[in-house]
Amino acid sequence: MKRLFPSLQETATLGSVFRRFPAKLGPLVAQLNLVMRGESDLTIAQRELIAAYVSGLNACAFCHGAHSVHAQAFGVDVGVIEAVIQDPLSAPVDPKVRPILSYVSKLTRTPAMMIEEDAKAVYDAGWSEDALFDAVQVCGLFNMMNRILEGTGITEYYLDPENVEEHQLAPLRSEECYTEFGRQNGVTD
Amino acid sequence: MKRLFPSLQETATLGSVFRRFPAKLGPLVAQLNLVMRGESDLTIAQRELIAAYVSGLNACAFCHGAHSVHAQAFGVDVGVIEAVIQDPLSAPVDPKVRPILSYVSKLTRTPAMMIEEDAKAVYDAGWSEDALFDAVQVCGLFNMMNRILEGTGITEYYLDPENVEEHQLAPLRSEECYTEFGRQNGVTD
Amino acid sequence: MKRLFPSLQETATLGSVFRRFPAKLGPLVAQLNLVMRGESDLTIAQRELIAAYVSGLNACAFCHGAHSVHAQAFGVDVGVIEAVIQDPLSAPVDPKVRPILSYVSKLTRTPAMMIEEDAKAVYDAGWSEDALFDAVQVCGLFNMMNRILEGTGITEYYLDPENVEEHQLAPLRSEECYTEFGRQNGVTD
Amino acid sequence: MKRLFPSLQETATLGSVFRRFPAKLGPLVAQLNLVMRGESDLTIAQRELIAAYVSGLNACAFCHGAHSVHAQAFGVDVGVIEAVIQDPLSAPVDPKVRPILSYVSKLTRTPAMMIEEDAKAVYDAGWSEDALFDAVQVCGLFNMMNRILEGTGITEYYLDPENVEEHQLAPLRSEECYTEFGRQNGVTD
Amino acid sequence: MKRLFPSLQETATLGSVFRRFPAKLGPLVAQLNLVMRGESDLTIAQRELIAAYVSGLNACAFCHGAHSVHAQAFGVDVGVIEAVIQDPLSAPVDPKVRPILSYVSKLTRTPAMMIEEDAKAVYDAGWSEDALFDAVQVCGLFNMMNRILEGTGITEYYLDPENVEEHQLAPLRSEECYTEFGRQNGVTD
Amino acid sequence: MKRLFPSLQETATLGSVFRRFPAKLGPLVAQLNLVMRGESDLTIAQRELIAAYVSGLNACAFCHGAHSVHAQAFGVDVGVIEAVIQDPLSAPVDPKVRPILSYVSKLTRTPAMMIEEDAKAVYDAGWSEDALFDAVQVCGLFNMMNRILEGTGITEYYLDPENVEEHQLAPLRSEECYTEFGRQNGVTD
Repeated sequence: MKRLFPSLQETATLGSVFRRFPAKLGPLVAQLNLVMRGESDLTIAQRELIAAYVSGLNACAFCHGAHSVHAQAFGVDVGVIEAVIQDPLSAPVDPKVRPILSYVSKLTRTPAMMIEEDAKAVYDAGWSEDALFDAVQVCGLFNMMNRILEGTGITEYYLDPENVEEHQLAPLRSEECYTEFGRQNGVTD
Repeated sequence: MKRLFPSLQETATLGSVFRRFPAKLGPLVAQLNLVMRGESDLTIAQRELIAAYVSGLNACAFCHGAHSVHAQAFGVDVGVIEAVIQDPLSAPVDPKVRPILSYVSKLTRTPAMMIEEDAKAVYDAGWSEDALFDAVQVCGLFNMMNRILEGTGITEYYLDPENVEEHQLAPLRSEECYTEFGRQNGVTD
Repeated sequence: MKRLFPSLQETATLGSVFRRFPAKLGPLVAQLNLVMRGESDLTIAQRELIAAYVSGLNACAFCHGAHSVHAQAFGVDVGVIEAVIQDPLSAPVDPKVRPILSYVSKLTRTPAMMIEEDAKAVYDAGWSEDALFDAVQVCGLFNMMNRILEGTGITEYYLDPENVEEHQLAPLRSEECYTEFGRQNGVTD
Repeated sequence: MKRLFPSLQETATLGSVFRRFPAKLGPLVAQLNLVMRGESDLTIAQRELIAAYVSGLNACAFCHGAHSVHAQAFGVDVGVIEAVIQDPLSAPVDPKVRPILSYVSKLTRTPAMMIEEDAKAVYDAGWSEDALFDAVQVCGLFNMMNRILEGTGITEYYLDPENVEEHQLAPLRSEECYTEFGRQNGVTD
Repeated sequence: MKRLFPSLQETATLGSVFRRFPAKLGPLVAQLNLVMRGESDLTIAQRELIAAYVSGLNACAFCHGAHSVHAQAFGVDVGVIEAVIQDPLSAPVDPKVRPILSYVSKLTRTPAMMIEEDAKAVYDAGWSEDALFDAVQVCGLFNMMNRILEGTGITEYYLDPENVEEHQLAPLRSEECYTEFGRQNGVTD
Repeated sequence: MKRLFPSLQETATLGSVFRRFPAKLGPLVAQLNLVMRGESDLTIAQRELIAAYVSGLNACAFCHGAHSVHAQAFGVDVGVIEAVIQDPLSAPVDPKVRPILSYVSKLTRTPAMMIEEDAKAVYDAGWSEDALFDAVQVCGLFNMMNRILEGTGITEYYLDPENVEEHQLAPLRSEECYTEFGRQNGVTD
């Protein structure tokens, strides 16, 4: 942890940030739940993989670790997530997902440099505009969350994605996972 | 405009994106309103200046233009916004605001590289942790919004920030400015 | 379009820029024609592919789109151009072309960081020094053209490279294609 | 020198490159002469300063050195050029020139990220569209030339800009300086 | 801390890394002592300031914090170090030091892009070649140390540079400060 | 060569730098010898390959050339080194080495952005912590050496890695290769 906010303790996590500023985050957790658990042409596993990937690109260890675990809760092998971070083009994911990963990678690094071919590669792989918009939303949301974590100094995640147990994964499968996390940490509507 | 989403017309704006995907953005507009118009140790003018600055760094012309206009609605001279974009350290802003601008600039460009001194410079200028958290939130939200705009190809703003008229500024002063914009464009709760 | 030059209309293209400054571009169109259509160990298709690729790296949508169409006029499949942009190392191009693409990519991004091995990879693939010089010239010219387009705010191309018709491709096969475009837009010798 | 082109000798300069490929550069030297010595709202000294500055940003030591000397031939103090490279905002140049230097700096580094405010800062300083276009042209041309030099391995300039003598400066004041240099090195029309 | 080396404990510091690999670091601590405490045209305070600055550029919080404290032991005000990190050109340091800071900044970020003018600015400020070489050495050493810290996951320093006490500063003034630190942590010759 | 140090001759090499500053480099050559020739879970060939690769990333032509030759002395084919520079993921190296190359690549470019997954990929390939630490050390040392070379203007290596002869390779196989090079160039203990 970096002591950017002296009132946060050395052991602070995202929950600590929520409890410190409970009145400022209500709609955000609702938006996270809507984008990550709502209806979509992308599976939940795909959305969590995008969240983990974008967070890895930004080197946000907290979000990267957390969403590697979320993705596992929906059946993604931890080795796949590691391979995507090393090189999405050769990782053992459904090839259909690769142009989506390329799109969010570029949108994360150089948002103003998208060209039409980036989108065409996604559509050519068989995705709908709704799917691409949802990928853009996940990309946008985690570019936000990564900055909330890094901007408050929360640089580590408390679980080891390689050693999580079923009882830790089960609650992540809740349809209200993100809003529940907010509620548990005092975030008000 | 870049034709990243073929169903959006050549003249599409953020409102068009909202009308295209109305069910996916409800809590987001509420969060924007909370962060940009809610209680804060930062004035609304300061928050809109941060939004315009972050968007300029990301070269998101739509958000940069839009929030230059919002900032003007709260008394910021358009020349000041231009000067901040050219060089925040020499721009004619309250010197107290400079370490905040440095913080959000670094958090935008290299989020994982914040060091404690970046935060200390903010506190040494007299700001509270609440103020810094609000700056982090504005920074995070516009890193998100910039990617929603650029990721859907909306690359231009329709007003010229140097030639806006009072009747265009008045509605921006509403306490519900962001949620109203959502409602007008069909975004549902 | 970005309104960087107020005298250019919202619908301006490269032709508009030529008509606005006709006396300043004569030798440039001749140089473009010489490099892109003159004798070379690189085929015209290969030169147009390099032009499209460099322009894609710089996110110059106008030149990228335009030279994707030019390349098609000389038999390059639009899907190949898209694949090169996504990843030149795995794209279905003649493997001999890959070290040329790597060379111009590095020369575009970090011109002062070429090392001898970059050139050796080109020669080892069987290319002559003349071929490499022509690739350097195409790379240099489009780094120039990309900045003329982006520096005047022309950010979009008017054709869709995925839907061009033969009658649009035919004129591009002229040996005087570039100088004719200059002449049609009033550029004087 | 980097041995990127084995046929060029260890002592090769830009003239050597011209003599090696004389048939491929004729219109280019004419374009250089037109842009750098033709009519313009920018003085020749200002254009040479931009050329030196852009080349410094790209770390092209040959062009940076050469155009530092050219600028001196038109009265620019070598110390001013050095100061511009260190920090254009604090360098002792006419403040009117600073937004031009900011424009070409951004156009060199991230060409696709210009925003309208970048151009406004130039116009607000009193410049015409013609002046800005000429700055864009100089910027574009030296982004090209830098890549021709670095792409052929010519990494050093043979004069020391701090110790040039009047007899070395005089020929640079010719109205045909660039075309003469081409002619002397065998470049054909 | 990032758990890059599982055998290092959550509370590991540089001393822990030394104790983990004692046989691999002996000459390194001697080189650190020679460069940071040996004879030089740069004062020890100036060398420690460069070390803190380079480490800040690389966002190596451990080295940045540690050498901010070292610099204080030699009379540098902590506010000055903070100001240098925010903007070396406007920080209240001896103006003579600024071109040295610019040199090591560029050498840290883009080592292959130095140009002669970067060195001239240093000499014009009155420095000797020996002084510049020592600055290059400090820059090189901390680019190494930053990677040893970040590459082993030691991301935080244990003291707060703003609240150090005299008894913590005294040992840093030893002429054998770096070698003693090695010895205390088991590093063998 | 760049004339950054006027007292170094046009033909200067690393040996010249050593002879110019003999009293400042003694422990450094010992550290180089310890890391590059001492006991390690990495073979000498692997360490020299890492040194050449890191130097290539930094475009330090001297170190890249020199350590390409060193690697050849230990049996690495020069074509393999070239392939690694072009693309380590597809180069014909032992796949076990790839995550090590990825680790040092990221640690070179963005040292503060390592995440636990980067290390896991190394351990999953079967490497020990000692091996990873040695890779970190080689990476750190050459990030230092690259800056000493580039910071003193030594930009070229005098041998052609593609045409070295056995009698030039033999001395590089000495167990004291690095310290001998120091001694031959007057570096004192």
